[in-house]
Amino acid sequence: MEKLKSYFEKHLPNIEKNFSLLLKDVDPYVREIAEHILKSGGKRLRPMLCILTARAYGYNKPDIYPVACVLEFIHSATLLHDDIIDHAEIRRGNKAAHKIFGETKTILTGDALLALSNKIVTNYNNIKLMRCLSEAIYQTCAGEILEIDKMKKSWISKDEYFQIIRGKTAYLIQFSCESGAILAEADEKDLAIVRKFGLNLGIAFQLVDDVLDYSLNQEKLGKPIGGDLREGKITLPLILYLDTFENSKKIEMLKKIKKNELKQEECLKIINDINKKGVLKKSLEACDFYVKEAKQAITQFPNSLEKEILNDVVDFVKNREY
Amino acid sequence: MEKLKSYFEKHLPNIEKNFSLLLKDVDPYVREIAEHILKSGGKRLRPMLCILTARAYGYNKPDIYPVACVLEFIHSATLLHDDIIDHAEIRRGNKAAHKIFGETKTILTGDALLALSNKIVTNYNNIKLMRCLSEAIYQTCAGEILEIDKMKKSWISKDEYFQIIRGKTAYLIQFSCESGAILAEADEKDLAIVRKFGLNLGIAFQLVDDVLDYSLNQEKLGKPIGGDLREGKITLPLILYLDTFENSKKIEMLKKIKKNELKQEECLKIINDINKKGVLKKSLEACDFYVKEAKQAITQFPNSLEKEILNDVVDFVKNREY
Repeated sequence: MEKLKSYFEKHLPNIEKNFSLLLKDVDPYVREIAEHILKSGGKRLRPMLCILTARAYGYNKPDIYPVACVLEFIHSATLLHDDIIDHAEIRRGNKAAHKIFGETKTILTGDALLALSNKIVTNYNNIKLMRCLSEAIYQTCAGEILEIDKMKKSWISKDEYFQIIRGKTAYLIQFSCESGAILAEADEKDLAIVRKFGLNLGIAFQLVDDVLDYSLNQEKLGKPIGGDLREGKITLPLILYLDTFENSKKIEMLKKIKKNELKQEECLKIINDINKKGVLKKSLEACDFYVKEAKQAITQFPNSLEKEILNDVVDFVKNREY
Repeated sequence: MEKLKSYFEKHLPNIEKNFSLLLKDVDPYVREIAEHILKSGGKRLRPMLCILTARAYGYNKPDIYPVACVLEFIHSATLLHDDIIDHAEIRRGNKAAHKIFGETKTILTGDALLALSNKIVTNYNNIKLMRCLSEAIYQTCAGEILEIDKMKKSWISKDEYFQIIRGKTAYLIQFSCESGAILAEADEKDLAIVRKFGLNLGIAFQLVDDVLDYSLNQEKLGKPIGGDLREGKITLPLILYLDTFENSKKIEMLKKIKKNELKQEECLKIINDINKKGVLKKSLEACDFYVKEAKQAITQFPNSLEKEILNDVVDFVKNREY
């Protein structure tokens, strides 16, 4: 992981510098909120994936940074809108943007970041890049919509769960990788490999996120535990946990979860059970499949420092604990 | 105007048919709200401008319809988000979408329509078209932001007013015309003429809109009168009206307007004064400048039926009373 760390450290200042450059001409009103969300943390995974993939396929030009930044802009725009939609109070340990700046400005900042992203990418004069970008934004949006649509229902299947996380998270991570390879003029065969890598990494990333939401370690870090459960959000750990019950009991529990009728002690019991009964382990086993697929894809990347680091990125995504 | 009417009637069914085709694969959840806003009226001015300009410059292919529809999608997306931002209850005589479907779905539908628009336009494989589209979306968003930003202040100047309406309305109308000319492969000289036409038409359009908001005729049509005044929105009629007062009186009135402290009778007095004291006439005189510029640009269009109809469109925009 040392190599990964020093690689990230080398590129991060350029990413941050480009954030400022790209936001320079934006109305100060929007810039303030964009900077708030950008400065609130985040590991810049998406920009780094773009840079790593581009360089793995031989593209070393510094004009990679704007498109790399676009990936963080899109991600930030979805966070801004999602937090309004979810009525979230907190984002990355800070007050959510709409709680500080109000919903109006926050909606508009999300819109502006998406519009700016499209505008920046047109500067590359690359139709393939634009097409993939618009597809990624569309799929991310469609995934979010699907999640909210399904959330109204009493139950979602494992298939539906994977469809949701593919949309809301994995496509943008896929595009983060693909965009680098497109700039490197990788051929269709290589692009397919890169997409396979990105999509599987993206699914694994969200799966781990959903597992961490139930993990008792979270609490040690001062984060609320079981947020998804309290919101009535059905993710893989809850699906696997409820599957251990008889149908009638499962339906009864689901009703309570969906109606937000769980008492604090019931919540804690479910979280404890999920931790104790091997459900998280089973969820992570599901994750292993995607990790393997991602790693298998990497073996077909050209040999390079970046290939090694992308391999480390997969391990990092799988093993992260915060 | 008969020619204009029959021309519109000929193309409108194709536009409506393409709305359905383009929304077919969208999540039903979003489609419902998109269809609601699309079916709530609107004259399809933006799609028609695209078709008219394309044909004026010799482009008659039926693949014009998707990009024409995109212009209405973008317009609809901004209406959806704006109504949330303005806390609007009513849109085109019906309940505003967010009042029926909730804010969550309405935000997401706006996002999806913008994403879909970008996706549709990439299918044309035309970089110029994509670049102009992303610029138009960005400028529309920036105009909206500027308006909200300036609204907080106690006063906006005439210059600032024109900057706002250029952004929030005129750029998209400009792009509506430009997109048609780009598909027709018009050269840079012609594109500049088309842009000049569209921009001036767009400014005139918003000016008339802002005048109609104060027009006593509005009330006859069952619409609330002086909505902008009640919202504390400073538009040209109010700017010109307040300019007739001494500075101290002007500041006092502005304070009341900004703090929403106007009593109903004070509101009506201002509206009546604006109608009686020739302020609306003076506002429309400002409009005449842009109408003339637009008409002057049209004279440089190639001779065609569409050239005549575009001329009628300008008259229609100038003289509409609803």
